[in-house]
Amino acid sequence: MSKLKFKAVPGSIVAPQGFLASGVFCDIKRLGTGKGSNKGQKRDLALIVSEVPATVAGMFTTNQICAAPVKVCAERVKAGIAQAIVVNSGNANACTGKQGMKNALAMTALVSQQLHIADEHILVGSTGRIGVTMPMPNVREGILAAAQLLGTEPAQASEAVEAIMTSDTRPKQIAIEFKLGGRTVRIGGICKGAGMIQPGMSATGARPPALPAGLHATMLCFITTDAAIEAKTLQACLREAVAHSFNRITVDGDMSTNDTVLVLANGLAGNKGFRIQNSEFRIFQTALTHVCLELAKMIVRDGEGVHRVVTVRVGGARTIQDADAAARAVANSALVKTSWHGGDPNWGRIIDALGYSAATVVEDKVDIGYSAPGAGKILWSLRRGQPTKATFKQLCAAAAPKEFDLHLRLNLGQAGAVMYAADLTEAYVDYNKGDVTDPTTLGG
Amino acid sequence: MSKLKFKAVPGSIVAPQGFLASGVFCDIKRLGTGKGSNKGQKRDLALIVSEVPATVAGMFTTNQICAAPVKVCAERVKAGIAQAIVVNSGNANACTGKQGMKNALAMTALVSQQLHIADEHILVGSTGRIGVTMPMPNVREGILAAAQLLGTEPAQASEAVEAIMTSDTRPKQIAIEFKLGGRTVRIGGICKGAGMIQPGMSATGARPPALPAGLHATMLCFITTDAAIEAKTLQACLREAVAHSFNRITVDGDMSTNDTVLVLANGLAGNKGFRIQNSEFRIFQTALTHVCLELAKMIVRDGEGVHRVVTVRVGGARTIQDADAAARAVANSALVKTSWHGGDPNWGRIIDALGYSAATVVEDKVDIGYSAPGAGKILWSLRRGQPTKATFKQLCAAAAPKEFDLHLRLNLGQAGAVMYAADLTEAYVDYNKGDVTDPTTLGG
Repeated sequence: MSKLKFKAVPGSIVAPQGFLASGVFCDIKRLGTGKGSNKGQKRDLALIVSEVPATVAGMFTTNQICAAPVKVCAERVKAGIAQAIVVNSGNANACTGKQGMKNALAMTALVSQQLHIADEHILVGSTGRIGVTMPMPNVREGILAAAQLLGTEPAQASEAVEAIMTSDTRPKQIAIEFKLGGRTVRIGGICKGAGMIQPGMSATGARPPALPAGLHATMLCFITTDAAIEAKTLQACLREAVAHSFNRITVDGDMSTNDTVLVLANGLAGNKGFRIQNSEFRIFQTALTHVCLELAKMIVRDGEGVHRVVTVRVGGARTIQDADAAARAVANSALVKTSWHGGDPNWGRIIDALGYSAATVVEDKVDIGYSAPGAGKILWSLRRGQPTKATFKQLCAAAAPKEFDLHLRLNLGQAGAVMYAADLTEAYVDYNKGDVTDPTTLGG
Repeated sequence: MSKLKFKAVPGSIVAPQGFLASGVFCDIKRLGTGKGSNKGQKRDLALIVSEVPATVAGMFTTNQICAAPVKVCAERVKAGIAQAIVVNSGNANACTGKQGMKNALAMTALVSQQLHIADEHILVGSTGRIGVTMPMPNVREGILAAAQLLGTEPAQASEAVEAIMTSDTRPKQIAIEFKLGGRTVRIGGICKGAGMIQPGMSATGARPPALPAGLHATMLCFITTDAAIEAKTLQACLREAVAHSFNRITVDGDMSTNDTVLVLANGLAGNKGFRIQNSEFRIFQTALTHVCLELAKMIVRDGEGVHRVVTVRVGGARTIQDADAAARAVANSALVKTSWHGGDPNWGRIIDALGYSAATVVEDKVDIGYSAPGAGKILWSLRRGQPTKATFKQLCAAAAPKEFDLHLRLNLGQAGAVMYAADLTEAYVDYNKGDVTDPTTLGG
């Protein structure tokens, strides 16, 4: 996978041919500081539009409590065609009952009127506080303004990124270019994350038996491509890409009610459509996975209060399920995460978490080691359950960088799993405890 | 259960007839500040001894990585007889390989020599840093000193409590007196906790299928009673008591390698032995559960950095397993725990955690409410998935006390579960990140 090189290009979601974007401020949090286009406030409503109908694929939270916009998207994506996405921050439209569903549908209907696109080809996403009814007059003004401001400039994609951010401290966007069937194809993407981050998404929102139950910021990701690809093939590619990216990250172990990834493929690159498992499929799959993984890592790096990012690499597990359980137990252990924050190479906490995980673990088989990101030389702290001769100073140096890999070998089988995980810091606690005297500080 | 009244008495583990205790400082952390009895340092080695052989029962961590002393106890408890317990803090004797097992056995052998008690009737417990070989010369000095200092005074029990503390900020002890078969019987107990606390214990250390996989400070608890009770009956009582107490608490969701509860019953109260399910059994069972629950709550209240204690009461679940999964998901959610710290009655985070739990949850059935500890009037924030008319100010007042009950009704069945949970604070993170320039700050 890593053999293929993709050229980075500017413009994220408007880099592929035929895509437009915009982002406006319409005061969805009702701060009362003016509406319409941005008046000094962070934007909070975005539009992403293809000039022509596109094939579409989506992956959605498997949380049983699932927001109205997620339900709308999961249903509409089934038809395989879409042309526009409307997204807001500041309100998750989750746990808002029948009115919430009416409001999500009213948002797509407004976009339909403005852009003269069939309502059923419009998708919707929301992120923000749970349980608050959407301020529809504001949303309406926002959609009207955003429809007027649509364009293909990178600055417009950046305004869309800004509009989907919540506790994110920086925008997350990427675009790449590569050859596919003799044509130049681009994939662009934007996403947001920060807290309530351990997505476990499936194509329908139904929980697949293989997915661990304990999965968990809202993450939203919107991807555009000018590749020509059938909806079913696109869905297969996205499922695989998400399995190796967004479903492998954790900030705080909490799975949101709103996690959503959508891909629109409008075919304007003019490549010949391809089918599953031919060489073009594999190139596209690799490219889409690359985009998703880069965006997923940006979410972890910019997680709430995050100071260090650790890639937990489990190997030698009896089964894939064991490998996944072992990686998630370590990646979500409060004691392991606080030790990462302190730069403490505390293998005792790590082997403790392995031991209480659902994975089969045998003490005198376990290896624990450190390396720079993406492997290279591993410094082992534990081999076959026994401390190595690595000194405490050496191990501290290995656990000191802002990013490192933690290698956990169970030596019981052949299965492996990776988790991209954040440390747990005072800043995370401070941010999320909020301030009840200022309810605008209280998160979703 | 709550109908029976138990009289509180002083002396904890030496309150029952025929029990002696002591606690000394022998520098197990090798701070180099002098050995033998306490020289201004916190004690770190305790002895608990019965004048006569006692029946014994034990419950042990189900972590697959399990400390040498746990293995020794799990094996010896099977015979049903014990007379002494030696316990140290400062070193967990976990992940210490064959030498660790030799050292645990050497500790019981030393006590055997000093007290002229059969080696196989001596149990051992350890808590502290994982993966460090026990400093046996210090331990030896400690055992010799502790054997000299044994006595039946409450002050000696207090010295034993001090010796088992790690990050605990205060001692945890209790003793009660009640009538059993016409005789006055006492039960006394001491325990320690603070971090790495979500015990999931079984009688053998093997993980029972019914126990959730994700269970997790080292907690140690030692209970004495002068009741006469057969070992099998005592084990049945302890299993039930732990199921309703220590296995229902969480500080940080991490299950330790060393969690241990031991009960010695020496029969000196002179009651007639009783069997399972007669009225005396029920009285003893209720008394033992009361002692375990009071000690378990002390552990949560004194958890690392803990500011608020919340009793999560799930009702109306489809199954016991669902009720347990729902309660643990909420009790261990980083976002829910930080909102408790902030006094934020954030039902969005709570229903989110319910939704990603393994329990079946239906959004428009869920009730969420608050009450003072132990029920009374419930203030509902959500009924059948819809916000109630309770004001934000009212809900903040309900979530403001240092202790409150959180009522979660799924309204899908009849099953319930309770978890005694701690909030997540900056102080927890600060304590557990430690300071790599001062390895003595780094926890087990």
